Amino acid sequence: MTVYATIDLGGTKIAGALATVEGAIVAERTVPTQSYEGPRAVIERIGALVNELAADYGERPAALGMGIPGNATAAGEVIFLPNLAGNWRDVPARAWLEPMIGCPVALLNDVRMATLGELVYGHGITTPTLAFFAIGTGIGGGFAYDGHLYMAAGGVNSEFGHHTILPDGPRCGCGSRGCLETLCSGPAITAEGVRLLLTGQTTVLYTLVDGDTGRVNPRTMAEAAAQGDTAVREVLGRASEYLGIAVSNVIAFFHPPLVVLGGGVVGTSAIDFDTVRATVRARVQMFPVDDVRIEESLLGTRAGMLGGVALAAQRGIAWGRT
Amino acid sequence: MTVYATIDLGGTKIAGALATVEGAIVAERTVPTQSYEGPRAVIERIGALVNELAADYGERPAALGMGIPGNATAAGEVIFLPNLAGNWRDVPARAWLEPMIGCPVALLNDVRMATLGELVYGHGITTPTLAFFAIGTGIGGGFAYDGHLYMAAGGVNSEFGHHTILPDGPRCGCGSRGCLETLCSGPAITAEGVRLLLTGQTTVLYTLVDGDTGRVNPRTMAEAAAQGDTAVREVLGRASEYLGIAVSNVIAFFHPPLVVLGGGVVGTSAIDFDTVRATVRARVQMFPVDDVRIEESLLGTRAGMLGGVALAAQRGIAWGRT
Repeated sequence: MTVYATIDLGGTKIAGALATVEGAIVAERTVPTQSYEGPRAVIERIGALVNELAADYGERPAALGMGIPGNATAAGEVIFLPNLAGNWRDVPARAWLEPMIGCPVALLNDVRMATLGELVYGHGITTPTLAFFAIGTGIGGGFAYDGHLYMAAGGVNSEFGHHTILPDGPRCGCGSRGCLETLCSGPAITAEGVRLLLTGQTTVLYTLVDGDTGRVNPRTMAEAAAQGDTAVREVLGRASEYLGIAVSNVIAFFHPPLVVLGGGVVGTSAIDFDTVRATVRARVQMFPVDDVRIEESLLGTRAGMLGGVALAAQRGIAWGRT
Repeated sequence: MTVYATIDLGGTKIAGALATVEGAIVAERTVPTQSYEGPRAVIERIGALVNELAADYGERPAALGMGIPGNATAAGEVIFLPNLAGNWRDVPARAWLEPMIGCPVALLNDVRMATLGELVYGHGITTPTLAFFAIGTGIGGGFAYDGHLYMAAGGVNSEFGHHTILPDGPRCGCGSRGCLETLCSGPAITAEGVRLLLTGQTTVLYTLVDGDTGRVNPRTMAEAAAQGDTAVREVLGRASEYLGIAVSNVIAFFHPPLVVLGGGVVGTSAIDFDTVRATVRARVQMFPVDDVRIEESLLGTRAGMLGGVALAAQRGIAWGRT
């Protein structure tokens, strides 16, 4: 049976798998990234990982789809990863990898790859036009239309995390100000929790983390809110409202029947879906939005890995249009 | 030679023309809308106008493309025009018009129709992926990708004028708050000029309009700014910056190679393109934007009429995908 390889390259670990085109995973392995060793060493580690997976299963993959925490050129050949240690500019990842593993390689931004996973193996099975938000350490996005991932010619688009929500808001890691990511990412929410702790505005959260700011995060904050911490509830409510504004803007532009929220922060229950939905109803007035659904990812943390399978098998993606 | 009819239905006048598929206009007429007489009377006036154009030219049109200041259903059959006098909800414009003029009729929001015009007869000839902003009494938008107008299933999308720029900003006519339209439309800019006049913060503009607030508008304000009115310059600069934020958001989402600015306010020179471009460079940091052009419409006020020709001839629009 034909199998495809999928790799999710992260800042701390490289997750790899072999799967069928139906999305059934037949082999799985994870290794540390150790990006400080530089691009060549990491790419070699990825090549070795794919070869080990093939040995585990006893069959070579037909192709590899790989998600990266940054952006590839439109043809998916060269990648730029600003957030990894080492000089990850203009790295010819595809040219290096293909001889190592003996099959075609396609590269894609990790959140666009998760969108592709959701499109081909998740909500997209019934709703092939959808917008996707991944809310974690950063915030990324993707958009699929009529069964195909939207891909701009430049290879980068759908940067929902880096559009302006508050023009004079906090400085963003990207260099701009008041991006959604500064208001609703895991670190952004955590920073507001730390602010509450340090200014004595919370007792439930303080008790929960034993006064240790290092233990404040969206998960402990969601727990504090569930236990009745009104200050933390307000912070999470505001973050959810900012996300609701961002979702409203995406709906105003694309008007998809479905917006999917995924990523680690959504998994912690820190995001209040009712607030997101109420904000959308208040903000989008140019057309009825009762039929625009806002739902959690059906695939959770597996959206990216499954997106790599779709990428390798060239399902839901038209490279010719890029 | 085959000719197509095009109609731009506005709040005060109905502009009509016959044109070839190459965009050469061979007959042209305009009549008042008088929308207070109700939908049926207006639709009959449009039918008569098309028939008069056909008599002028001596040939029947093969089809009609009509732009409306509101939204049609996806199939372009029924329209809803909230800003016209009379009850314009669920009006079967197509069913009424086709027997009157004896040819197929297609309906489209006027700004999406202008985007189609720009796509088929303007900048789109060389750059078939583009975003379009029409800045006038209201602000509308459109997006074309790979030579086709983007059309969501619901028939409404690309509402760039109604996405949030200032979450706590002024109340918008649409019901939301701080939409781009509340900050950069003609009336929004005029209101800020009136504020300056009434609070004694401008002398150049005051002299120019003889102290008459009724004569304050984007055109007189642009003239005052050109004559050195620093307060008015600041107001126009801020409106241009808000527009720049909106353009940045559109670029972050779609990453088109070109953003076209059109509409009456752009025609008055009230918008400072350098400020728009500088704002985009400051706000879009996730990918290089040096190659994303921000240009004035090549067609100006004719974008809508020419879009109607493209709509009638079914160029640049795939109804099957809606």
